[in-house]
Amino acid sequence: MTNSLSDRKTLAADWFRTLRDDICAEFETIETELPAGQPHADLAPGRFERKEWQRPNDGGDQGGGNQGGGNQGGGAHGGGGVMSVMRGGRVFEKVGVNISTVHGTFSEQFRKEIPGAAESGGAFWAAGVSLVAHMRSPKIPAIHMNTRMIVTSKSWFGGGTDLNPMVEVPQDTADFHAALKATCDAHPCADYPRYKEWCDEYFFIKHRNQARGVGGIFFDYLDSGDWTADFAFVQDVGRCFLDIYPTLVRRHLSESWTAEDRDWQLEKRGLYAEFNLVYDRGTRFGLMTGGNPEAVLMSLPPEAKWP
Amino acid sequence: MTNSLSDRKTLAADWFRTLRDDICAEFETIETELPAGQPHADLAPGRFERKEWQRPNDGGDQGGGNQGGGNQGGGAHGGGGVMSVMRGGRVFEKVGVNISTVHGTFSEQFRKEIPGAAESGGAFWAAGVSLVAHMRSPKIPAIHMNTRMIVTSKSWFGGGTDLNPMVEVPQDTADFHAALKATCDAHPCADYPRYKEWCDEYFFIKHRNQARGVGGIFFDYLDSGDWTADFAFVQDVGRCFLDIYPTLVRRHLSESWTAEDRDWQLEKRGLYAEFNLVYDRGTRFGLMTGGNPEAVLMSLPPEAKWP
Repeated sequence: MTNSLSDRKTLAADWFRTLRDDICAEFETIETELPAGQPHADLAPGRFERKEWQRPNDGGDQGGGNQGGGNQGGGAHGGGGVMSVMRGGRVFEKVGVNISTVHGTFSEQFRKEIPGAAESGGAFWAAGVSLVAHMRSPKIPAIHMNTRMIVTSKSWFGGGTDLNPMVEVPQDTADFHAALKATCDAHPCADYPRYKEWCDEYFFIKHRNQARGVGGIFFDYLDSGDWTADFAFVQDVGRCFLDIYPTLVRRHLSESWTAEDRDWQLEKRGLYAEFNLVYDRGTRFGLMTGGNPEAVLMSLPPEAKWP
Repeated sequence: MTNSLSDRKTLAADWFRTLRDDICAEFETIETELPAGQPHADLAPGRFERKEWQRPNDGGDQGGGNQGGGNQGGGAHGGGGVMSVMRGGRVFEKVGVNISTVHGTFSEQFRKEIPGAAESGGAFWAAGVSLVAHMRSPKIPAIHMNTRMIVTSKSWFGGGTDLNPMVEVPQDTADFHAALKATCDAHPCADYPRYKEWCDEYFFIKHRNQARGVGGIFFDYLDSGDWTADFAFVQDVGRCFLDIYPTLVRRHLSESWTAEDRDWQLEKRGLYAEFNLVYDRGTRFGLMTGGNPEAVLMSLPPEAKWP
């Protein structure tokens, strides 16, 4: 028995919300686990604050459904999202988890760039979850994760996750890649080598000729013809993230760091900000098309340096 | 008696270098004037370090001649510049003054966007001086200044300066604008109301719907038909900057500030970085065309926050 498109949208949006809840709960648990004596252990455990946002009638969304930005200048549109942000935690210096479910009509120009949008008369629906975490400890990698479902006259999933350590720890990198490989390999609809390469290509700071982090996976336009199978893969990407990232965080929770480590972390964050402001498609699209800057720029680091 | 084009190039490049020398000397003098007891007064007075750069054969310049970036993918090119950077001073947290004199050939595509470049077969020459100063004290405004001469089959000057206080001080704003107005009004080739408006339009962070600073002047394609008059104006813009900015710096040299003032300064600097990475034409052009990232991104703040 197959689900109707309407059912699929509901299942996907419900999943993104559930994943958001599970991630926020896990991160709040980690906040309570910081050993006494560690930097910032004297602070209260960080908690997420939630803020709903609606697509303004003169603003709107980029249709990616995960960064809160971008009006395509089209016709009817609606929906919104919820930003969950933890600021100034003991482990998480700033982490934002945004979910959104939006619909509308792409402009004549923009619909040419989106599969199936010309055939839908520009109509689109999108839902997703997007996360960026910047950590207190320079020994704990920063991370990005995003999954989304887009519907025009076609329907597909996209997303990915990439790890951003300040100084690469080979075991972390190996475990992160292994977890993603195992997730992809368990799903015939997924192509791990291609998704890993796509990630390396996408998260590359061209003007610095260097990668933003150590990679992960990136995928888009996933439509194998079996929606249920594709959705199961997307769910497992979320579950994989929810397992491997907390594992890496806890691995380094008791490590100390120096002022030099912190300076290097702030410098690496400068590169992260450069990538997002100069290259990231979702960010630039959101900014250029009148998105809510608070939601679009939630990914920027709480503090950064360009010495 | 009129100067030949060759003489004009030499006069302009010599002036940009002289202005660089005068600015660096004045800023180093200010470093020695910080009163005892002020934050950072225990540091040694900051000094500029100079670093020459050449246009690489596979990289090159953006032709603006002032940011060290961007290869137009054209034919022969050459020249280079000198970055003068003071880091970690007592008054100046990070200030870069870049001069450059470059020449080359614009690509077929790029020459369509540049006046006179189609008629010159793409050939161009450019020289300029560019400055951005980020200050220790949140009570002292940050500043940007740039002047340049460009030659294709046409020849013109461009440039400007804009003031970026953390919290606007009306007297500073008034004095800054008055100094620039007086400079423009002394030169019939200059159009102060237009240059002031151009500045407000250019240094606007659209996605935030707010100005980057409190404005100043911005001008481009200045060619009144009297090169000597235009050059005299451009020189006076430099002299005006060299008078008014140190005046504003010294005015606030003994003021104290709080941790909250500093946090706000770092947040305002985040907006400054956003503008430069998302909108600034010279920065984006430099990054997109293989410029030296160190020179192109010299303008980024030493430290910034996105809370």
